[in-house]
Amino acid sequence: MIGENIVASAYIAHQGQELQAINPGTGKSLAGLFQKASTQMVEAALAAANQAFFTCQNIDPNKKVLFLQTIAEALAANGEEIIQRAAEESGLPIPRLQGELGRTTGQLRLFAELILEGSWVDAVIDPALPERSPMPRPDLRKMLVPIGPVVVFGASNFPLAFSVAGGDTVSALAAGCPVIVKAHPAHYGTSALVAEAIISAVEKTGMPKGIFSMLYDDGHEIGRALVQHPQTKAVAFTGSFKGGMALVRLAEERPEPIPVFAEMGSINPVIILPEILESKAEELARQLAGSLTLGAGQFCTNPGITFAIAAPGLDRFKTAIAEAISKIPSATMLSPGIAANFHTAANAMSKEKGISVLAESNLINKELESQSIPRILEVNASDFIKNKHLGEEVFGPQGLLVCCADVQELQNAVQELEGQLTITLMATAKDLQQHLEIIDRLKTKTGRIILNGVPTGVEVCAAMQHGGPFPATNDSRFTSVGSDAVYRFVRPLAFQDWPEELLPDALKDANPLGIYRKIDQQLTKSHVK
Amino acid sequence: MIGENIVASAYIAHQGQELQAINPGTGKSLAGLFQKASTQMVEAALAAANQAFFTCQNIDPNKKVLFLQTIAEALAANGEEIIQRAAEESGLPIPRLQGELGRTTGQLRLFAELILEGSWVDAVIDPALPERSPMPRPDLRKMLVPIGPVVVFGASNFPLAFSVAGGDTVSALAAGCPVIVKAHPAHYGTSALVAEAIISAVEKTGMPKGIFSMLYDDGHEIGRALVQHPQTKAVAFTGSFKGGMALVRLAEERPEPIPVFAEMGSINPVIILPEILESKAEELARQLAGSLTLGAGQFCTNPGITFAIAAPGLDRFKTAIAEAISKIPSATMLSPGIAANFHTAANAMSKEKGISVLAESNLINKELESQSIPRILEVNASDFIKNKHLGEEVFGPQGLLVCCADVQELQNAVQELEGQLTITLMATAKDLQQHLEIIDRLKTKTGRIILNGVPTGVEVCAAMQHGGPFPATNDSRFTSVGSDAVYRFVRPLAFQDWPEELLPDALKDANPLGIYRKIDQQLTKSHVK
Repeated sequence: MIGENIVASAYIAHQGQELQAINPGTGKSLAGLFQKASTQMVEAALAAANQAFFTCQNIDPNKKVLFLQTIAEALAANGEEIIQRAAEESGLPIPRLQGELGRTTGQLRLFAELILEGSWVDAVIDPALPERSPMPRPDLRKMLVPIGPVVVFGASNFPLAFSVAGGDTVSALAAGCPVIVKAHPAHYGTSALVAEAIISAVEKTGMPKGIFSMLYDDGHEIGRALVQHPQTKAVAFTGSFKGGMALVRLAEERPEPIPVFAEMGSINPVIILPEILESKAEELARQLAGSLTLGAGQFCTNPGITFAIAAPGLDRFKTAIAEAISKIPSATMLSPGIAANFHTAANAMSKEKGISVLAESNLINKELESQSIPRILEVNASDFIKNKHLGEEVFGPQGLLVCCADVQELQNAVQELEGQLTITLMATAKDLQQHLEIIDRLKTKTGRIILNGVPTGVEVCAAMQHGGPFPATNDSRFTSVGSDAVYRFVRPLAFQDWPEELLPDALKDANPLGIYRKIDQQLTKSHVK
Repeated sequence: MIGENIVASAYIAHQGQELQAINPGTGKSLAGLFQKASTQMVEAALAAANQAFFTCQNIDPNKKVLFLQTIAEALAANGEEIIQRAAEESGLPIPRLQGELGRTTGQLRLFAELILEGSWVDAVIDPALPERSPMPRPDLRKMLVPIGPVVVFGASNFPLAFSVAGGDTVSALAAGCPVIVKAHPAHYGTSALVAEAIISAVEKTGMPKGIFSMLYDDGHEIGRALVQHPQTKAVAFTGSFKGGMALVRLAEERPEPIPVFAEMGSINPVIILPEILESKAEELARQLAGSLTLGAGQFCTNPGITFAIAAPGLDRFKTAIAEAISKIPSATMLSPGIAANFHTAANAMSKEKGISVLAESNLINKELESQSIPRILEVNASDFIKNKHLGEEVFGPQGLLVCCADVQELQNAVQELEGQLTITLMATAKDLQQHLEIIDRLKTKTGRIILNGVPTGVEVCAAMQHGGPFPATNDSRFTSVGSDAVYRFVRPLAFQDWPEELLPDALKDANPLGIYRKIDQQLTKSHVK
């Protein structure tokens, strides 16, 4: 494992401060020394990225496909070492990381397929109408092209699937954008191993070297320099509200505005309607306790808040969730800092007016550090409505049950909710029919609305929307999970009266790529007549 | 003509300051008194818009279609009065305004067709895979939904096509977003007449009244309040760089980031390559002189700068463009303020180092005010490269010819260009083949690249891209002209395991709307199996 920074797919040694990774469970430093990057490296990485961006303009899509597939192969080939290191650095269990590595290589292959199929460039052709009166129409053809170098911040909670070769990186590379990764300080070693896989794929497939760089920093200096560099054309981030908004505001200080995609906090409300509560109180309680504490509650889509109407099933639900929570063991959180923040936020919330502790786990692992203790709090809707803090995310396995006196109070309480990644309804068919207005309100507050499921477990597919109204993200118009994530890093370019031989293949008369195109407002795979 | 502000499709009288429109040609006030809006009206307009937004969620698309068509009919029915008033307020000639009204009603009908066809919602369906191992896949379905109330700033240079019922308004309404227009102070009366058409269409088609409001202000107070209102979810603007960036920065002061679409300045460079210059010097000169002075040079796509290599044809080109420019009469600019700004900027540029006046019109209408005088300046590439000011937009009929010693100097000069709405190549097939690298550089700097045409005359169609890298716009990922403009005002919403009967029609199994949908990654009009 090489701990040097990577500029244009090459290791750069220098005499910077040395950084070490920590095992959050033991609190001890792990093997491997990593070098804090310099701002000169930021300059060099962006210059190389900009050059690679220019070169990649006319790249054969098949070469991009091969590049993404080769990264996936290299990750899989070194899977054991990567997973081992990620487990040590993140405290996440091996099976979870095995799944996450599969998701990461799956993502790479999904985007490879997208590029291979080719229609994602949204080609639109309005052929010339030379006879049109009073003015002829020129020949106009438009397609999506990459936006430029993209800065990706590795996420703490997905050391593989949302980090160095994760969803942000792969969607930017698929778009044709060079990527500069700011490695997350909670997993330097995992980052180094994953970067090795990317560099080897750059080498093997002959991609321009500037397509990938990765820099280490335990502070904010390098991140700030990356976001504010004039050649940076987009930024992708998954993390806290505070971190995401700091990047948004940093980008706003630039003379040139650029898109920042910050996937931030969400409490992913679950609303349990009366009929299903009565019929399935215990089952729902167990299901939610599991979702709330999965991965030590460190998912973006962790269901942090549950609303229920005081109905016959509510007491049974409370008993069952209390019992379930009390039996779920503590778990190691991603980093000592995240564990400390969780304890502070969880305790602060438990002291807010009207809050009582419904249940808490008593299975605490005393031999490990950075332990999260599953807990569920309870509050009345009237107190919830009065206190904005109760709607804020607590990153970790703590949930809040909001008990509503009646439908009207439920309506008032959900009206207070801010934008969310997900909102879940637990409901029978009759429940839904009786609460249509609440559902319509909820739809305006979320990116994904779920019926009778749990929000954790985010499918990587074309129909996924992982993004939602502020403050869940800063820009609800895009998704960071699924193939549509590629649309964050492209812009349309129109060619007017351009000669066939110089048009990109996607726009040529004969449709050599065999893709879907909108010709004269009709979607078709046929050639231009 | 009613000069009261419009809140939720109703006129609101109050005792505000009275405003008057000015005929820029005569400098005299025109009939009609308009009331400066109050911030209370901003509150009322946004509250009504937010309510209408909620109501519109489940609106029948056919009702939206009828609404847009009815606006077009109402505009056409009152066309004569609207055009007459617009001519008085803008100084633009009647035939141009007749064309612009046709474009405006055409735009309304284009978006009506888009909604009627229905596939624009980008429906994506990944059906459940209950048997998948290790985890079943839920049923996921995604489509675009409106983002919320949109604030539209009327543009000075298109009093019809980019103002009250122009491209921004119609694309927002098509998306399902309520619109609050800030009327442009250069054409209060035109705005009032067009708003009447919209209100009558709201009435006739039974749309929720909050879907449309319009406020008057000769200063910045109302615009600022609109941009910063918490219920505003997007802003659209066409105008100067200074004005656009002021709105971008105002929006950045909000706690909640929202998209601002500012179509700002562009000098729309034209690059004449050597072979075509030799063979068509005179024809190109006449063509460019016409495009430069069209509409008194007040188009976003006005070709403000021309690059040519010192080659045998260059002297002939200079002689011909000088002759053409000298014969083009002065014209009334859109407002006394715009005329004053043009004279200041044009004179300042003519005094920059190395600049000489190649030609100036001597046909100046002394009987009218606010006259623009067509002029073309000349500079060597070496002076151009040294002086950033020479690449800035001068809004009006003044062009700059940059003479390059050779291909290398041309390459260096175009490298200095900032982002543009359009870049035009004048070239033979051989010219193109010999300058491929320059062309690749230019593609990274523009939203539309044109061969052997003029950038003025922006076709309203699906393949149009009217938007480009900064500073042409603040967000190159979107277009403000053509049917894709609708994508500025939507966000995806995903439904997970949602029951058929409560899904929007676009996502129902049977595909009752008969639209294209991506099912299991295949585009199809068929139902879900």
